[in-house]
Amino acid sequence: MRLRKGVVLKRIKIRTQKRSQWLDITRQVETALAEAGVLSGMCLVHVPHTTAGVTVNENADPDVQKDVLKFLDQMIPRDWGFLHVEGNSDAHIKASLMGCSLTLPVEEGRLMLGRWQGIYFCEFDGPREREVWIQT
Amino acid sequence: MRLRKGVVLKRIKIRTQKRSQWLDITRQVETALAEAGVLSGMCLVHVPHTTAGVTVNENADPDVQKDVLKFLDQMIPRDWGFLHVEGNSDAHIKASLMGCSLTLPVEEGRLMLGRWQGIYFCEFDGPREREVWIQT
Amino acid sequence: MRLRKGVVLKRIKIRTQKRSQWLDITRQVETALAEAGVLSGMCLVHVPHTTAGVTVNENADPDVQKDVLKFLDQMIPRDWGFLHVEGNSDAHIKASLMGCSLTLPVEEGRLMLGRWQGIYFCEFDGPREREVWIQT
Repeated sequence: MRLRKGVVLKRIKIRTQKRSQWLDITRQVETALAEAGVLSGMCLVHVPHTTAGVTVNENADPDVQKDVLKFLDQMIPRDWGFLHVEGNSDAHIKASLMGCSLTLPVEEGRLMLGRWQGIYFCEFDGPREREVWIQT
Repeated sequence: MRLRKGVVLKRIKIRTQKRSQWLDITRQVETALAEAGVLSGMCLVHVPHTTAGVTVNENADPDVQKDVLKFLDQMIPRDWGFLHVEGNSDAHIKASLMGCSLTLPVEEGRLMLGRWQGIYFCEFDGPREREVWIQT
Repeated sequence: MRLRKGVVLKRIKIRTQKRSQWLDITRQVETALAEAGVLSGMCLVHVPHTTAGVTVNENADPDVQKDVLKFLDQMIPRDWGFLHVEGNSDAHIKASLMGCSLTLPVEEGRLMLGRWQGIYFCEFDGPREREVWIQT
């Protein structure tokens, strides 16, 4: 059996407030990296849900998030005529479009993001208690 | 030259039955991890095709997959007026929307997925013989 | 502090010519791998922007790229009525749909892609000077 020493999987708890919502989790990912003492390599951000996802997008103007969420809501209507009895198939589709997993570079102890990039937890069927797993 | 010892790339063969179809490959990924004896780290699932992808979504109610596939079919119509002579541009678009590659965490020998998460091979231009590559 | 020796983050500069455009960067990624002397493992391709992304798709018929770009343009209209004053919310949505980050397998010194797969930088708000970061 192979053991890659030092691999850490950190679980972060999140509370969402709306049905559709983006939460900036950049700081939490950076904290997890600092606590694990990672100098360089890859950082994996995984969302263990099927009606939520994770993405990277602009961290400056909050209107960007509003625009994305509003557009996705009209592109994938909740009442489209889905079979799934829970009534949240729109959220399952959005989750797969965003993706549940993100791999980001780390260099000299720093999470390497572009100047305007932030990491967003994408809630599509809240409000709920959620988790984000960060592997460093 | 650097050699990360123990890196294994396993090729799995898949046979799809329909033009648009999701196949649960969670068990195959877990088997590849067990055979490689991976204790912790990242597991990469790569689909080497351009009209198929890979995603994570609900593993409980099969209606979710039907809803996603039916919705994608109406969102991206096959006869939209595409230039590509093979007539499968809709499948190329769907493939890029899902993604061809997925990185997932492994901890204590276990593929770390959420309670309702399964890994799905996404066929968009079947039926065909396909492959999934799993790097551990 | 943990140090994974040999991790290299290479920055590649790109100049796009249109508002919406795909650029094949497969060769650049292969060159970065060769220069770093990577034998096996994962290769991370990260786009540090929020109105551009990265995807894998067909490398043979250029009509596929035209079809995808034209379809995305009509699916996500620039003048939809977005709030964001920069007028490029459509590009932010497309960026999250494609994703900013891609992890690919490397084996015996070769980037492992399928026969028809190429790596594409996805410009959605050009023309601009852009970067791609490659971690090996």
